[in-house]
Amino acid sequence: MSRFFSSRYANAEPYKPGEQPKGQTVVLKLNTNENPFPPSPRAIAAAAEAAGRVNIYNDHMCRDLKAAASEYFGLPAENIMFGNGSDENLDFAIRAFADDGFPLIFPDITYSFYETLAGLHSLPQVVVPLAEDFSLRLEDYRGLKGMVLIANPNAPTGLARSRAEMEAFIAEDPERLVLVDEAYVDFGNESCVPLVSKYDNLIVTMTFSKSRSMAGARLGISFACKELIDDMEIIRNSGNPYNVNSMTSAMGAAILQDDEYTRKNCAEICRVRGWFSGELRALGFNVLDSRTNFVLARTDKIGGKELYEALKARGILIRHFNQERIKDYNRISIGTEEQMKLLLENIKEVLK
Amino acid sequence: MSRFFSSRYANAEPYKPGEQPKGQTVVLKLNTNENPFPPSPRAIAAAAEAAGRVNIYNDHMCRDLKAAASEYFGLPAENIMFGNGSDENLDFAIRAFADDGFPLIFPDITYSFYETLAGLHSLPQVVVPLAEDFSLRLEDYRGLKGMVLIANPNAPTGLARSRAEMEAFIAEDPERLVLVDEAYVDFGNESCVPLVSKYDNLIVTMTFSKSRSMAGARLGISFACKELIDDMEIIRNSGNPYNVNSMTSAMGAAILQDDEYTRKNCAEICRVRGWFSGELRALGFNVLDSRTNFVLARTDKIGGKELYEALKARGILIRHFNQERIKDYNRISIGTEEQMKLLLENIKEVLK
Repeated sequence: MSRFFSSRYANAEPYKPGEQPKGQTVVLKLNTNENPFPPSPRAIAAAAEAAGRVNIYNDHMCRDLKAAASEYFGLPAENIMFGNGSDENLDFAIRAFADDGFPLIFPDITYSFYETLAGLHSLPQVVVPLAEDFSLRLEDYRGLKGMVLIANPNAPTGLARSRAEMEAFIAEDPERLVLVDEAYVDFGNESCVPLVSKYDNLIVTMTFSKSRSMAGARLGISFACKELIDDMEIIRNSGNPYNVNSMTSAMGAAILQDDEYTRKNCAEICRVRGWFSGELRALGFNVLDSRTNFVLARTDKIGGKELYEALKARGILIRHFNQERIKDYNRISIGTEEQMKLLLENIKEVLK
Repeated sequence: MSRFFSSRYANAEPYKPGEQPKGQTVVLKLNTNENPFPPSPRAIAAAAEAAGRVNIYNDHMCRDLKAAASEYFGLPAENIMFGNGSDENLDFAIRAFADDGFPLIFPDITYSFYETLAGLHSLPQVVVPLAEDFSLRLEDYRGLKGMVLIANPNAPTGLARSRAEMEAFIAEDPERLVLVDEAYVDFGNESCVPLVSKYDNLIVTMTFSKSRSMAGARLGISFACKELIDDMEIIRNSGNPYNVNSMTSAMGAAILQDDEYTRKNCAEICRVRGWFSGELRALGFNVLDSRTNFVLARTDKIGGKELYEALKARGILIRHFNQERIKDYNRISIGTEEQMKLLLENIKEVLK
């Protein structure tokens, strides 16, 4: 640390992303919930076309992209904003609304970036344990004042609550702000986006990284009532108004207009997830009921870290978390059927 | 403002970017210092190729891009970091180092985004007036403690200080942190990058938006000693570690490897600037001696705002600032010779 570092950020603890190997041989990379399918050809073409005119600034209001999203999600443009990845949308929301007197409230097992952001901004945190079976007990949040961050479906558990359950939760306390992080919603859960026009204490975020194959392009979207969007826009417009580049914008609009491609890929990933979960269970694994493009699984036959390391030695990356309650588990991204077959063969060999 | 908005950001005053028209007919757009030339064909090809594999996350450490920059600028990778546009690099630096007890210090007439960031983060500001002729008097900063932001060349004046003058300034007080914003350095000024290995109180930022035709792709670069870079990386890695997308990264590396293209375009822009400045002077304008891809100019024949509005009515956008000391001036971006000829014709007609 330099002698100039500000004490404002003394609590920052940088996020540790999943390994992004470079150089070494990786046979299979199933550790960061990437989509195994490339972006839609229409999206690729749109980005390539946009690349030719980046000497001109991107539209800092993302008007074309917003129009495409407005059409797709059936909400006015004033209820929508974009980030340079969903992580940035989370940052905008947390900065705009959490405060010394308005803590961040989130489960003990969830997307670890919430804790990273809380640390960065020195925000008070209330951590609410998931149930024994890792399900989210919304009743445990009753009476807590602050900004609740709910990944639904949750990561890395993959478990989800229905829209009706979420709506009851959002409705029960208008002074509690609820952010529903729907990064994985397209893999089998109901979205809370339709609730945005009904509740002014709700923010929904989504990413284009997973179902829409745009992880490396960075695009996140937030939905909320106009007042909440305007507040978050103050942060965006004061910090980095040109945050979404032209190529990513063009790609995002094109993929929303090519929804058949997205739906086909999601259906295939869900199909493979079902089959792969069954195969893992047949090998004696406990596999949580995932509504995402990954599964969380454990077995008595081998420790979580042991399995992770044995597979890594074979050039296969899955994700292990050194967190007490889930250290026996691993999170495995769902790739193509062929990739999952190769993984299964390797798991069988490791367990021999 | 919603009832949830945090008082932490009560001082935020969103940045007002130059007009980015959409829909209406624009004959000439010379208001945001864009490069009139498209990105290098090699850069476009690299971005298009990267678009096809954005289902995989971008490298959050930007290793390939950093290697290209290290080679190009002749500095180790540990002295380099990237932002989603230079504005984000400024934000990282200001968050990491400015503080309630360590104010931001900058000229009264400079890039207005510094003030925007100071407001966003509720940072104390010390504003030091430029000389009567808009030149930067470095001696006026003597004895001031804090983080000094110097755009060199300055915007919107276009005036510059030499590297030797900057070095003397950096050396005179090691407890003062100096950020030199070299957004426009490639249009005729000396860079302070070679000083980074000598001084641990220096940060240099550059953008790929201007000389490298990548405004819409968003890429900024910072140079500093390892300790300062590591501090800024804490902010980046805690807030949005995947900030530079794959397409922009690929484009940035390719353009650094195609420097002949950049140098040719910069030389042409400088040539047009010289000729255009002469033409403006012949029309009775006072034109500041620009080292950038724009000129700041005024004439007694018409008010600054009047000229701006008369040209706007003709579909020509230049930039007018409603700031007392420069309200008689306009900032005019340098486009192609053909574009500047068209502008001159229109100015002549307006002055008739």
